[in-house]
Amino acid sequence: MQALGRQILVEYYDCDPDIINDVAAIERILLGATRASNASIISHNFHKFSPHGVSGTVVIAESHVAIHTWPEYAYAAVDIFTCGETIDPWIIQEYIKEEFRSKNISSMEMKRGLFKVGPGEELLFKPKDAGNINLLN
Amino acid sequence: MQALGRQILVEYYDCDPDIINDVAAIERILLGATRASNASIISHNFHKFSPHGVSGTVVIAESHVAIHTWPEYAYAAVDIFTCGETIDPWIIQEYIKEEFRSKNISSMEMKRGLFKVGPGEELLFKPKDAGNINLLN
Repeated sequence: MQALGRQILVEYYDCDPDIINDVAAIERILLGATRASNASIISHNFHKFSPHGVSGTVVIAESHVAIHTWPEYAYAAVDIFTCGETIDPWIIQEYIKEEFRSKNISSMEMKRGLFKVGPGEELLFKPKDAGNINLLN
Repeated sequence: MQALGRQILVEYYDCDPDIINDVAAIERILLGATRASNASIISHNFHKFSPHGVSGTVVIAESHVAIHTWPEYAYAAVDIFTCGETIDPWIIQEYIKEEFRSKNISSMEMKRGLFKVGPGEELLFKPKDAGNINLLN
């Protein structure tokens, strides 16, 4: 059983409310975190809501990072979806934790796109020959 | 215990590979799905990869929808993150399933941002008074 992607769902509690209500700060922090992990940024969008809260996404070559913040609860939800072995999603998690000054985080790692492969085979991210992959269903 | 958000992680297997490799089709389908659920679209980005695959995000007022496709495995990963009670994420799931002609899907619903509230209290999404919410940590 091999997975095409991995996804880290992070709950950041007890954040600095001013930081997670500041759309410019969040853009700077998320772009800095993705760069620190060596991800390749393709596009990004960040939006401030009224009366408070920020949402944003960063599409990276290796998938995406998404954020939603509730400054009134000092809470931010972040998803870090990656594929391939070239970047480490935990670098992104730690970078954001420090910048948000979160005192409590909880994280869960999910495998996405599970397929069964035969002995000696590997699940390729950009396969030249996908004919030897058996779909698990 | 109440949650600020809910997130549906959907694995679409056995999709039509041509559809999930077509960035224009995916944009049309994801925007159609979010509109069908009555979500308010704020921004969107879709990207085609070489040799195949599409990634994209739709930021909605109620959070986001994100997609990554692997046409070579007839597989697409979709996240549907919503907050509030005004939209139904399962409408989005079903709409995409039909359009991708997926023969097998598996979905998991996650609660995001869990907080403890006192008797008779409610977790408000845009609270006028957040003072009576007890942070769970």
